[in-house]
Amino acid sequence: MSIDAMGGDNAPAMVVEGMEMSLDKHPGTRFLLFGDEPRLTPLLEQHTKVAAVTEIRHTPDAVKNADKAAQALRSGRNSSMRLAINAVKDGEAAGIVSAGNTGALMAMAKFVLRTLPGIARPALATYFPTKTGQSLMLDLGANIECDAENLVQFAVMGEVFARQVRGLEYPSVGILNVGAEDLKGKQSVKEAATILQDTDLPIKFHGFIEGDDIAAGTVDVIVTDGFTGNIALKTAEGTAKLFGGFLKDALKSSVISSIGALLARPALNQLKMRMDPRRYNGAMLLGLNGICVKSHGGMDGLAFSNAIGVTADLVTTSVNESIKADYARLHEGEPHELAKQAES
Amino acid sequence: MSIDAMGGDNAPAMVVEGMEMSLDKHPGTRFLLFGDEPRLTPLLEQHTKVAAVTEIRHTPDAVKNADKAAQALRSGRNSSMRLAINAVKDGEAAGIVSAGNTGALMAMAKFVLRTLPGIARPALATYFPTKTGQSLMLDLGANIECDAENLVQFAVMGEVFARQVRGLEYPSVGILNVGAEDLKGKQSVKEAATILQDTDLPIKFHGFIEGDDIAAGTVDVIVTDGFTGNIALKTAEGTAKLFGGFLKDALKSSVISSIGALLARPALNQLKMRMDPRRYNGAMLLGLNGICVKSHGGMDGLAFSNAIGVTADLVTTSVNESIKADYARLHEGEPHELAKQAES
Repeated sequence: MSIDAMGGDNAPAMVVEGMEMSLDKHPGTRFLLFGDEPRLTPLLEQHTKVAAVTEIRHTPDAVKNADKAAQALRSGRNSSMRLAINAVKDGEAAGIVSAGNTGALMAMAKFVLRTLPGIARPALATYFPTKTGQSLMLDLGANIECDAENLVQFAVMGEVFARQVRGLEYPSVGILNVGAEDLKGKQSVKEAATILQDTDLPIKFHGFIEGDDIAAGTVDVIVTDGFTGNIALKTAEGTAKLFGGFLKDALKSSVISSIGALLARPALNQLKMRMDPRRYNGAMLLGLNGICVKSHGGMDGLAFSNAIGVTADLVTTSVNESIKADYARLHEGEPHELAKQAES
Repeated sequence: MSIDAMGGDNAPAMVVEGMEMSLDKHPGTRFLLFGDEPRLTPLLEQHTKVAAVTEIRHTPDAVKNADKAAQALRSGRNSSMRLAINAVKDGEAAGIVSAGNTGALMAMAKFVLRTLPGIARPALATYFPTKTGQSLMLDLGANIECDAENLVQFAVMGEVFARQVRGLEYPSVGILNVGAEDLKGKQSVKEAATILQDTDLPIKFHGFIEGDDIAAGTVDVIVTDGFTGNIALKTAEGTAKLFGGFLKDALKSSVISSIGALLARPALNQLKMRMDPRRYNGAMLLGLNGICVKSHGGMDGLAFSNAIGVTADLVTTSVNESIKADYARLHEGEPHELAKQAES
């Protein structure tokens, strides 16, 4: 696995810590670690388990958080991020993880790895905690404006993911909209729903879902454009944080409730763990000829180790091959009007 | 105040209960109650306080939840909803509250009351609980696709509302986007931000905010299109519900934590109250020549009484007059390109 050592607020220390933690769950992993060797060597000396399975590939260059995607693409050819992606392209690594600049990572990954045949744009996907477990949502910001065909492609990719990686036999797919009725919503979501209703693919298409269906776990795969998906994800994160803050305030509001909180602490910690965003860290860029996972830039080693776990899951389940096959099936027979557009 | 007695899942009983509760806070209110007299009379006999300040206006017709907006507009001319709106138009009532079909209410209100000069479309606005108090968000679903000028109008309406109704001296306004940087996001939000940055109006324009800024209370007024706003609102509701469910599960997970929960019950009830969606009930349709408030269809009397309270606040603060004046100021001097489009 290829790792961008220099991305993220607390890189590279956070990255190496995450690598160490990930080895408990995925002991067979071997790493190519791209970054500034003088900074990485002492870290590996402190983490001997990581050192034993890691090869450092030195580069002094790193993409900055403030860099624009186009700029990073032009001038970041020797950056740790770019070289880590190249390793996947060159077959040296099975997947790449970076906690760096999201826009730059998406641009570089798309440029180097290219999209799968028929897939116009890769989508950023992540798990969402739900009442019944977890759902996959995509896109989360890779594509700000999406047409119906983009949404259909996201549905195919998400469904394959849920089947292959999560092992669900017959995952359900819903499109995020402002109402469950067929007549409501944007033109693009209505068209996408029509295509998915008519498809021969074994997609269990639920139809439209609303914002509150995300946390309710109404469907296994939530399809939306990157603008809406990004805002929904962050709104959910913000609301969970608000609720947690209110809970803390409430429990501190009297001596008796503080005692109650003390007694309930194990339970409250369990709640905290269930809602912990680090557990859901690791956004997958689906639809490329290669595996690329984005770790949150502001989190810690535990979160990074989760992103490594997500990458390992993707590697072992050949998701991309299945996306390719399913997408081809969607448009087989007479070539579909929209497929032709997407391929052009 | 004009009340649609027949809208909402538990109408008309829930409606009359809400009217009774609202009289504690707004004792001077007088009601025109539109609906099926044979069903309303016994309810008023049970609620004598309401009966003393209410005049029933009988109609057997009611808009159904399943009715499409256009259909309700055509065939619902004698519905309780329509007659209640007419009462505002005719100057018989200062505002109207309905818990009925949202699409029908918006269509009828827009048709009967008309938009304010220069305002192309009314917007649905509601309060959101935040870390620091509450913020106003609009639009929440009245307008599925919005251009830059629509968003600018929402900003003006929201800012006036926050100043007049909430009494904030200098409310801050932000546009919901996928990043805080100027270069990110949809064309429409970027254009709207440019217009708001350049305006002479006393709008404290914060710039872009992200989904997690909603609950953080980063700005007083959150501007977005109706598609995104509706999904953000419902995602937040769903997440709060999920968190509440997880909390309940956690506290029941052991005997000791159950005891802890018992001790902390007053604090937990306080939390429940702070997050109670009934407290934030009452979505305002801003930008019309008249006050129209939508109450949630699936809630109870307490929630309906809150919607009546929201209507009373709007009535006493002449929001519409100020929106008209501010919007005129936004485009005074040389007529603005976009304003001309909006007025055409």
